[in-house]
Amino acid sequence: MARFEAALARASAGAGVIPGEHAQVIASTCARATFDVTSIAREARNAGTLTIPFVAALRKQIPGDAARYLHIGATSQDVSDSALALCLKTATERSVGLASELGDALAALAERHANTAMLGRTLLQPAAPITFGWKAAMWLAPLARSLPHYRHAAAEAAALQLGGATGTLSALGGAGDAIATAMARDLGLKKVVTWHSARDAFARLGAESAILAGIAAKMAGDIALAMQPEVGELAEPSAPGRGGSSAMPHKRNPAACVLALEAGRRVPGLASTLLNQLQGEHERGIGQWQSQFSTLRELVCASASALAAMAEVVRGLQVNEQAMRDNLERTNGLVFSESLSMRLTRADADRLVEQAVREKRHLREVVESSGKFPRQEVAALFDLRNGCGAAAAMIEQVRAEWTSARRSAP
Amino acid sequence: MARFEAALARASAGAGVIPGEHAQVIASTCARATFDVTSIAREARNAGTLTIPFVAALRKQIPGDAARYLHIGATSQDVSDSALALCLKTATERSVGLASELGDALAALAERHANTAMLGRTLLQPAAPITFGWKAAMWLAPLARSLPHYRHAAAEAAALQLGGATGTLSALGGAGDAIATAMARDLGLKKVVTWHSARDAFARLGAESAILAGIAAKMAGDIALAMQPEVGELAEPSAPGRGGSSAMPHKRNPAACVLALEAGRRVPGLASTLLNQLQGEHERGIGQWQSQFSTLRELVCASASALAAMAEVVRGLQVNEQAMRDNLERTNGLVFSESLSMRLTRADADRLVEQAVREKRHLREVVESSGKFPRQEVAALFDLRNGCGAAAAMIEQVRAEWTSARRSAP
Amino acid sequence: MARFEAALARASAGAGVIPGEHAQVIASTCARATFDVTSIAREARNAGTLTIPFVAALRKQIPGDAARYLHIGATSQDVSDSALALCLKTATERSVGLASELGDALAALAERHANTAMLGRTLLQPAAPITFGWKAAMWLAPLARSLPHYRHAAAEAAALQLGGATGTLSALGGAGDAIATAMARDLGLKKVVTWHSARDAFARLGAESAILAGIAAKMAGDIALAMQPEVGELAEPSAPGRGGSSAMPHKRNPAACVLALEAGRRVPGLASTLLNQLQGEHERGIGQWQSQFSTLRELVCASASALAAMAEVVRGLQVNEQAMRDNLERTNGLVFSESLSMRLTRADADRLVEQAVREKRHLREVVESSGKFPRQEVAALFDLRNGCGAAAAMIEQVRAEWTSARRSAP
Amino acid sequence: MARFEAALARASAGAGVIPGEHAQVIASTCARATFDVTSIAREARNAGTLTIPFVAALRKQIPGDAARYLHIGATSQDVSDSALALCLKTATERSVGLASELGDALAALAERHANTAMLGRTLLQPAAPITFGWKAAMWLAPLARSLPHYRHAAAEAAALQLGGATGTLSALGGAGDAIATAMARDLGLKKVVTWHSARDAFARLGAESAILAGIAAKMAGDIALAMQPEVGELAEPSAPGRGGSSAMPHKRNPAACVLALEAGRRVPGLASTLLNQLQGEHERGIGQWQSQFSTLRELVCASASALAAMAEVVRGLQVNEQAMRDNLERTNGLVFSESLSMRLTRADADRLVEQAVREKRHLREVVESSGKFPRQEVAALFDLRNGCGAAAAMIEQVRAEWTSARRSAP
Repeated sequence: MARFEAALARASAGAGVIPGEHAQVIASTCARATFDVTSIAREARNAGTLTIPFVAALRKQIPGDAARYLHIGATSQDVSDSALALCLKTATERSVGLASELGDALAALAERHANTAMLGRTLLQPAAPITFGWKAAMWLAPLARSLPHYRHAAAEAAALQLGGATGTLSALGGAGDAIATAMARDLGLKKVVTWHSARDAFARLGAESAILAGIAAKMAGDIALAMQPEVGELAEPSAPGRGGSSAMPHKRNPAACVLALEAGRRVPGLASTLLNQLQGEHERGIGQWQSQFSTLRELVCASASALAAMAEVVRGLQVNEQAMRDNLERTNGLVFSESLSMRLTRADADRLVEQAVREKRHLREVVESSGKFPRQEVAALFDLRNGCGAAAAMIEQVRAEWTSARRSAP
Repeated sequence: MARFEAALARASAGAGVIPGEHAQVIASTCARATFDVTSIAREARNAGTLTIPFVAALRKQIPGDAARYLHIGATSQDVSDSALALCLKTATERSVGLASELGDALAALAERHANTAMLGRTLLQPAAPITFGWKAAMWLAPLARSLPHYRHAAAEAAALQLGGATGTLSALGGAGDAIATAMARDLGLKKVVTWHSARDAFARLGAESAILAGIAAKMAGDIALAMQPEVGELAEPSAPGRGGSSAMPHKRNPAACVLALEAGRRVPGLASTLLNQLQGEHERGIGQWQSQFSTLRELVCASASALAAMAEVVRGLQVNEQAMRDNLERTNGLVFSESLSMRLTRADADRLVEQAVREKRHLREVVESSGKFPRQEVAALFDLRNGCGAAAAMIEQVRAEWTSARRSAP
Repeated sequence: MARFEAALARASAGAGVIPGEHAQVIASTCARATFDVTSIAREARNAGTLTIPFVAALRKQIPGDAARYLHIGATSQDVSDSALALCLKTATERSVGLASELGDALAALAERHANTAMLGRTLLQPAAPITFGWKAAMWLAPLARSLPHYRHAAAEAAALQLGGATGTLSALGGAGDAIATAMARDLGLKKVVTWHSARDAFARLGAESAILAGIAAKMAGDIALAMQPEVGELAEPSAPGRGGSSAMPHKRNPAACVLALEAGRRVPGLASTLLNQLQGEHERGIGQWQSQFSTLRELVCASASALAAMAEVVRGLQVNEQAMRDNLERTNGLVFSESLSMRLTRADADRLVEQAVREKRHLREVVESSGKFPRQEVAALFDLRNGCGAAAAMIEQVRAEWTSARRSAP
Repeated sequence: MARFEAALARASAGAGVIPGEHAQVIASTCARATFDVTSIAREARNAGTLTIPFVAALRKQIPGDAARYLHIGATSQDVSDSALALCLKTATERSVGLASELGDALAALAERHANTAMLGRTLLQPAAPITFGWKAAMWLAPLARSLPHYRHAAAEAAALQLGGATGTLSALGGAGDAIATAMARDLGLKKVVTWHSARDAFARLGAESAILAGIAAKMAGDIALAMQPEVGELAEPSAPGRGGSSAMPHKRNPAACVLALEAGRRVPGLASTLLNQLQGEHERGIGQWQSQFSTLRELVCASASALAAMAEVVRGLQVNEQAMRDNLERTNGLVFSESLSMRLTRADADRLVEQAVREKRHLREVVESSGKFPRQEVAALFDLRNGCGAAAAMIEQVRAEWTSARRSAP
């Protein structure tokens, strides 16, 4: 908030609206001013805004005549909205960095395990074979689609608000536009028209933050499921003090995945709050914008926490290829039943599958002994390489999409 | 959390599970222990729970052999859940107090203005006459219905959690139940069966908190609308530093109503987060309970803030009876058209109303000159006392409901 | 809606407000009237309410003079709100029935498997032994707590709305209260003061519906996890056409659990919509109540769908006790480590556990060979009956709570 | 769904996977097949998906051997997801059309009233003068920002899903990619990699739909406030049967605005449901995608309803310029106090404002008689043209942004 007042003073002096020497005094006071945060917060409840006690406290620290040139042409919401935009700029840049790390780790994982066969699972039941690289690519694909949207939303949200009493920049006369332009440049914010009564940018940033958190939570859930000892295909990287239990010495918990999952549970409600704050009355609403900073803080932090946790997990993920093969083998070939039903009528396929289940034999054996196929074709039917269809091509496509998403400037 | 560990030690000693002298050492250490909150928070991210670094930090402060008897039989979530229950107990008692103050102020307002005629407004358009006391009673009625639900939900949420590793109290052997009973009495919490994986009580408390905030926001919205200078029927109590504007010296903003309205916007999303956290995996979930304290804190505080603001507003509400009469009069009797259409066919009533609008005359005059009614009946038709129907009886009924809600023990 | 108009006519005649013969004509027309639903819906969009075209269509079917006595004293929202209350009454009674069936099935399951040992799992990792009966009791406990709340909320929501133009029953003069009382009795609804601008009862019913759905989803998730072939402890009852796959003949999907889980995902957002509709402007709001029927319908149906699915699943649940024992055994005794750490220092317990893991031996063997305990104590340490602590007592307590919840009248 | 099966058959024939004559039979059956919707819906509850009974019913209608080539290589979710994408394509195109009509109407309104002075209102209190054109531009600005995001989101959501059993297109062997490409072209959908377990596109479309509805609701709320008879500045276009009351003949309700406002209340919760469905288990989740069509239908329809209502309102909006001037005048010049406080110290400005309020005189008079300014400067201070600052420039900027948004291709 002090940065806003300093920039306003400098820009106003530049436009000839206030004397340059006073602007300098204001700016240098802003740079070193200190505040009694508790007392400002208490007064804010009375004043209806944090800005009024803040400006009063700042004004007291400005020596001489300069004090009366402070905050000229701005209104309370200009200060708090622009301060929020500055905070979001920093926070979302950090999130973009974390999402990029996560995506890079996934892209590497997808490549490394392009040929690691494992069981595909639908509705938590064995379905058909996949490769672990393809699974990683499926985690990456929504991130590749969503990162450009997030960057775009973050860039739009990092916008200067300067409008004065009602938003028309009335008090600054003809100089308003020039002052806004200078301030935006000074603060590194985007210059757009007055937006204090139009909160679409925050609603969108909230939704995009929730989407990133949801994407992280999706892979966290899959990893936690694969960490079940009964499955045992993946494990979080271990670290001292990580994932222990205060009651049971033998536990190894998916502690980092839990961070992403708890964020995933909280973000939809927080995002809906921001979507519920688009409507304010006339030129400044009652109750819809006043507390967005607390919701945005929770939401952006939850999202960053989820991304950071999963970046770390994916980078150090322990992949147990043997367990993947064992789990695949344990299905007794039933995961190839889709291919089988492509070659026979569904009824015939069903019969062979039922026989395999009933007799607890490998489906391949049952098919071979049925005499319905030449031996060579049976081998092809049960070949994992055929079983994974377009998986390899999809990995390549997703990796290319990621490379392009990574580059996308907002 | 220290209170939990102290109570656990005392109760365990009482049940003969740990030596009494060690329990005393633990309890007295808990009472005066200090913690490096930042470092505990940092380690918590690694550990997956706040409790592990907390217990470690506490253990270091316990002299001698007693340290090894700390936290025995409990698991991390027991500590954090019970600590949350303790916090909620204090916070919800405060909210019940605030809601009671608000309800009392409304009940007094309803009685005081039982005969203050004003315009009833539907869809923001003039409808038919009401009394301001009835309006206040309509604000009070949902509070009278909801306070008992809130108290009930708060009492259920203030429950001890003690279950050990999976919730069966396994480590405490046969003494588990006695220890839990003693701890619950010691801490002033309810004793129920293990609830760590069943978060219904928090979901319900969240919803009831949101309902109270919504009830407060409803009256805040009505008051802010009535404070529009074009309406001018109500005003918030004024106080120094309250409701000013940093840009415009003449503004008198509905600053306290804004507090209730902003809470009203945020609570549905927060409550939905808690409703979204009922489902956890098996005996302890991944991601659904880990951060409920932050959501509950925001929600319970938002609700309390709304109640406090409206208690203050209603107690000191400035009622402009003259403005109420003027606004009623300004409708030129059109607000009596419902009564009119009860006595005539709808088509006839419509005709007279249209004539009054077209000729800009008072509806009463038009009706009188229509010759459709004897003079005396016309007077009765346009008598405000008849116009308010069962308003007075409803005020009495709501006041009685409030008296009973006020008394209701949880 | 026709039932409302018929009851209004009968009650108005009873109170002498309209002639008895006309009331009879109206009531008998209401009983057999037919409507062009599409055209009413189309006109409703223009009129701003379904009631206006509905009343117009009904009026046309009433022969003679009686038509002008239709809908007298009521306003549009009276009709639509009361009609909604009637629908909810039926729907919530059905849900109470389903919840009762589910609870009964769980209570029976808890009793039947009070001694069936299985692995307790926290954070999807093996923790300590539990019994399957205790697990079922933990599913039942929140239902036992929540059913009385639901019934209470349902009873409050099934309330007659009759208020006329603004809610004061103005047009009915002194007869209003008697008419409302008679109508409420006629329609089987509760009589309360005007509530058209106070939607707390719907908000609460929404939240309680969401809680029931969440409770059902919790057990659905656990069952789906236990149906993973790698775990194999539970299975949905099989039925022809249930849970197959259109691509894979061998799949047995947790199809009924999916119904509860999809409901669990949708209800928090729907419930938040109702919590977001508490605030309406003055005596009849703009936009907050107009579409609650669609949200309530989705929410109450989702909740009923979840309860019905799980009642069926729990009643026919296939429990594989052998698999439970095997999974427990497969942990090599590590699930007893909590008990061990109760008897030794944590450091000593950790050492033995690490040794067991490293040497892939059963923890019991390692403990025995450590010489730290007499043989007999070791047996007790690893005895499943001791391992389940207060599980049996908790089962009894929850069953008793269910019996009492079952009886609770609203 | 029939269109999907037809396209699949044609594409499969094209790729040589099934015989061409059978594909033709399938496609022509799909074009004229009829279904017993109720019985399919009933069976779907058992089957866990609509697709299984649908395919069975379709198969029965296919004559001869062709039947066994139906649905080959696809899984249930491929059909339902792609069918949903087809529905969304149509629905979102309609919404883009409605949003464009609304934006055009706003752009015209902003231009037409660029010089229509009115009172700016903050926190429902008079603030400073604005122009009505600027107000319309402020309604338009978020729409201009959001329409391109919506189109982008809609284009991404209209994507073909074809993946087979687990998503790898395994059953179609090498032909999978060619078949998907041909089907996407045939159906007018985008071709992307398997997305059945990644619901980011629906989450985003939901959020963008909610944002459009919120933007419409914002202007609806402002218009309803300005339609209060005490304000009287705006009115909805009147139409026969629009906005009447069933109880009061004189009412003119903001019936169309109500449509936008009720949508605005419902959309945040619906959007949060979609944000809550990003996480599904492994290759096909349990419960997260199964019912998205119902949520998307409600959400997209609510959004379209809001846009349609406001397009109609804005196009025919009745603007009462006289009332705007009167309300401005009635503030006795207090709305110019911001300008005043720019020229004096805040304390001096406050003194003059208080004097004007106390003496009920026009602020201009008080300022003139204070002797603090030359007469000419006073005139400038109270000149509406100066009072609106950068309003005109902002109108131009927003209109230009709209023109560019209008053109943006997805």
